[in-house]
Amino acid sequence: MNRVVWPLTALLVIAGGIAHYAHAPVLVVFILACAGLIPLAGFMGRATESIAAHAGPRIGGLLSATFGNAVELIIGIFALRDGLTDLVKASITGSVIGNLLFVLGISFFVGGLRHPIQRFNIRAARSNASMLLLGICVAFLIPAIFTMQPAAGGMAVSGATAVMSLLIYCSGLLFALFTHREVFEYIEQAEQEEDPGHHWRLWPAVLVLLITTVLVSLESDWLVGTIEVVGRQFGWSDMFLGVVVVAIVGNAAEHASAVWMAWKNRMDLSLEIAVGSSLQVAMFVAPVLFFVSLMVGHPMPLVFSWPELVSMGTAVALVVVLMVDGESNWLEGAMAVGAYAVMAVGFYTLPA
Amino acid sequence: MNRVVWPLTALLVIAGGIAHYAHAPVLVVFILACAGLIPLAGFMGRATESIAAHAGPRIGGLLSATFGNAVELIIGIFALRDGLTDLVKASITGSVIGNLLFVLGISFFVGGLRHPIQRFNIRAARSNASMLLLGICVAFLIPAIFTMQPAAGGMAVSGATAVMSLLIYCSGLLFALFTHREVFEYIEQAEQEEDPGHHWRLWPAVLVLLITTVLVSLESDWLVGTIEVVGRQFGWSDMFLGVVVVAIVGNAAEHASAVWMAWKNRMDLSLEIAVGSSLQVAMFVAPVLFFVSLMVGHPMPLVFSWPELVSMGTAVALVVVLMVDGESNWLEGAMAVGAYAVMAVGFYTLPA
Amino acid sequence: MNRVVWPLTALLVIAGGIAHYAHAPVLVVFILACAGLIPLAGFMGRATESIAAHAGPRIGGLLSATFGNAVELIIGIFALRDGLTDLVKASITGSVIGNLLFVLGISFFVGGLRHPIQRFNIRAARSNASMLLLGICVAFLIPAIFTMQPAAGGMAVSGATAVMSLLIYCSGLLFALFTHREVFEYIEQAEQEEDPGHHWRLWPAVLVLLITTVLVSLESDWLVGTIEVVGRQFGWSDMFLGVVVVAIVGNAAEHASAVWMAWKNRMDLSLEIAVGSSLQVAMFVAPVLFFVSLMVGHPMPLVFSWPELVSMGTAVALVVVLMVDGESNWLEGAMAVGAYAVMAVGFYTLPA
Repeated sequence: MNRVVWPLTALLVIAGGIAHYAHAPVLVVFILACAGLIPLAGFMGRATESIAAHAGPRIGGLLSATFGNAVELIIGIFALRDGLTDLVKASITGSVIGNLLFVLGISFFVGGLRHPIQRFNIRAARSNASMLLLGICVAFLIPAIFTMQPAAGGMAVSGATAVMSLLIYCSGLLFALFTHREVFEYIEQAEQEEDPGHHWRLWPAVLVLLITTVLVSLESDWLVGTIEVVGRQFGWSDMFLGVVVVAIVGNAAEHASAVWMAWKNRMDLSLEIAVGSSLQVAMFVAPVLFFVSLMVGHPMPLVFSWPELVSMGTAVALVVVLMVDGESNWLEGAMAVGAYAVMAVGFYTLPA
Repeated sequence: MNRVVWPLTALLVIAGGIAHYAHAPVLVVFILACAGLIPLAGFMGRATESIAAHAGPRIGGLLSATFGNAVELIIGIFALRDGLTDLVKASITGSVIGNLLFVLGISFFVGGLRHPIQRFNIRAARSNASMLLLGICVAFLIPAIFTMQPAAGGMAVSGATAVMSLLIYCSGLLFALFTHREVFEYIEQAEQEEDPGHHWRLWPAVLVLLITTVLVSLESDWLVGTIEVVGRQFGWSDMFLGVVVVAIVGNAAEHASAVWMAWKNRMDLSLEIAVGSSLQVAMFVAPVLFFVSLMVGHPMPLVFSWPELVSMGTAVALVVVLMVDGESNWLEGAMAVGAYAVMAVGFYTLPA
Repeated sequence: MNRVVWPLTALLVIAGGIAHYAHAPVLVVFILACAGLIPLAGFMGRATESIAAHAGPRIGGLLSATFGNAVELIIGIFALRDGLTDLVKASITGSVIGNLLFVLGISFFVGGLRHPIQRFNIRAARSNASMLLLGICVAFLIPAIFTMQPAAGGMAVSGATAVMSLLIYCSGLLFALFTHREVFEYIEQAEQEEDPGHHWRLWPAVLVLLITTVLVSLESDWLVGTIEVVGRQFGWSDMFLGVVVVAIVGNAAEHASAVWMAWKNRMDLSLEIAVGSSLQVAMFVAPVLFFVSLMVGHPMPLVFSWPELVSMGTAVALVVVLMVDGESNWLEGAMAVGAYAVMAVGFYTLPA
């Protein structure tokens, strides 16, 4: 497959660059940048995983936890530079609900078509459940609620939340990789049982990571430059663009592997990708982007709109209840996808 | 008992008809229509069950799932014809919280007086828990949140929600009756162990169903015609009338049998009635009434008021936590009834 | 230790009295009153426990359930006398989130440093979970939601809620002490295994209870008199003072013993203190203060502000998920403390 994907990706990046610098119609640049980012994100993720596999479970875990959502971080940084704070928050929302409802839902559904009941580690599911509640419901609801009154506290509460989220995220790594490693050993084992030829050798992986990071940055720059014009052309709000378009572009590769794992009845890996990715966006990418926003001079308080908050909150509640019994089936997958579909229509109808 | 109930019902229907056509005081018509609907709903339910028992578990399951809340559907259609959309939504709310908190609460309480701890199927309870979250919290919250801003999206999001709810409701039937029947077999068994003389023969049941449907339609017509005047006389809001009065009239017969099952320690059947009925109203009756509202020219977006949404949301949260351990006792029943009582007082105090 | 604490407490009370009657700077009175209340609350709690131990498990249970939060009740009564209803509600909020997040969090964290995984009775945890949902989420959300519209129903719904909470609280005692005692026997046993020399003899305990009640009343009177001036001096809102300062003063002694129990791996006692105390404040102290507010002529509807409601609601949700698996570890403790920290910053930023 790589024989097709590599040249195609190169072609897409080159075409995107030409379109951007030759001032092609904005829609063309937009589509080429989106199309180029999807395989680049995939290569970047695989390079990170390969380096992590060589670095051993602990350093490897830290690497995945830091660079696992690098594409979203890079797009976010470029969007913040242009002051598109609503778009950045919407893409965080989109990553959270997309991973929790769409990716997990499709995984449960597709896996459930082949296996009547699929089981996964119940202790990890419960640990994830409380992390989701803290990192998404508490961390995003508190700044919104405390800035409802015309107070000046938005940045202070956002800052406190960002620091808390990062601290707890690091504590979670300490817990999973050091103090309570045995609880999560089943994931390491499952990963090792996976096709070992999947990983690249160390130095090629580092090279791929470096090159893709540069290319992703270029593409993100081009994408961000077009997004407002495209929104105006189609009558789409920043929120719809962020929640649906940017979130899908940044996560497409992960989506594919989560579903593939579920099809092979490796639900622990599937959950790890979908839920782990949501947590990483909420508790690592979002706080880091908050501090970046201070540095680039477009401060972005972590105050989400009510549609975003309620979408994320109900997504967490639904996934917690679906996950907490350690079992899944196709109906549970259909429920999660149904909830996602309704939210996507909702964001589509928001005025631009 | 039937020797008393049949003639009494006939008498109530005739008296209601005379009162309606002779333009008796509105309050008399209202009370007679309510009193007549209660036993009619009971006969209708029993006829549906009898036909379902003859049709075998699969077709029977589909029948119960479609006609199980026919009375509420009929009252809703007549109320929509008169443009009483707030009343219709309030009666949906009332059915949901009435079944979840009042019926389940009384069942847990009464059953718990006789049996210190009552147990029920934990897998079905968890499946119900996620359905409740999706069909009530997600499906009703999303349209409300996305139409907070002065957008024109109310009908679009409501439509998407209605389609999603119907699809997932049908998926749930497919799941319970076809792909995962063995999970729910314990209910079929429990039903078969119940008094087999309870069911009527096929053709008498069909006849009763036809006749009661006609009578329920008549009574609903009379009831709906009086409800606004009665509300004004007593200073009751549409919402109180819908949440408390209409919801009790439409569900009284089911209430009685759920409590009776709990008293006999058949908690699976009791839960099936109470929770199943809530789900049916939220995921089948509500979306069907949405489409009916489009046809009769009084469009009713599925946008509930905040008191309704919070009542339904907290009812679901409480019931999920009460249910998810697969056990009940009298204190859990008292909690649910207490929550219902506070909500009923709340709706009573709303301005007309 | 007592050899130091008794005289120190006496000294603090006397110094507080002198400062109050000599019209010392308000900040001095405030600090001395806070400092005096902390050990007094500790003695009062220990006297109550000792009397309860002599009175046998049933009467003793009733005693603890009634006088366990006497300090907060007394401060609340004095604050209501002065019409400081916002402060009273904030101190209720502070007790709830302080006990649920801070005390439980520190207990889980400190206990978890010594014991990798700590276990507690899962049935009691689930019973507590539904009580928390009812007594905090339902009971406080319903009055707030039903008085959003400019209705006159605030007091009626608050009254209904207060009556319901008291009834269910008493039902809970009936359940735990009479009808289902065996479920909670493990707590009695754990208590008896605790250092038996911890309890005082009956009459000294009664004497201590009487004297400390008088002293707590005096100190509360002095504290309440200073609190508004102190708030203005520091630019703190009533809400921050209530949520953080008053709540910590009233609960410091319990905090210490909950953490101490966790350190000794007696998680059932630790949970009983932290969660039991939250429930007692929400379902006993709050309704009693509501009725007191009617008597002293400063009616206080149980309508909390949105920051308070959301803080309490997310605290309950997080604790329910942390608790419901019957296990804890240091990371779960860190999560709860992190949530508390963010909320405290939020209340700090509210305008005075």
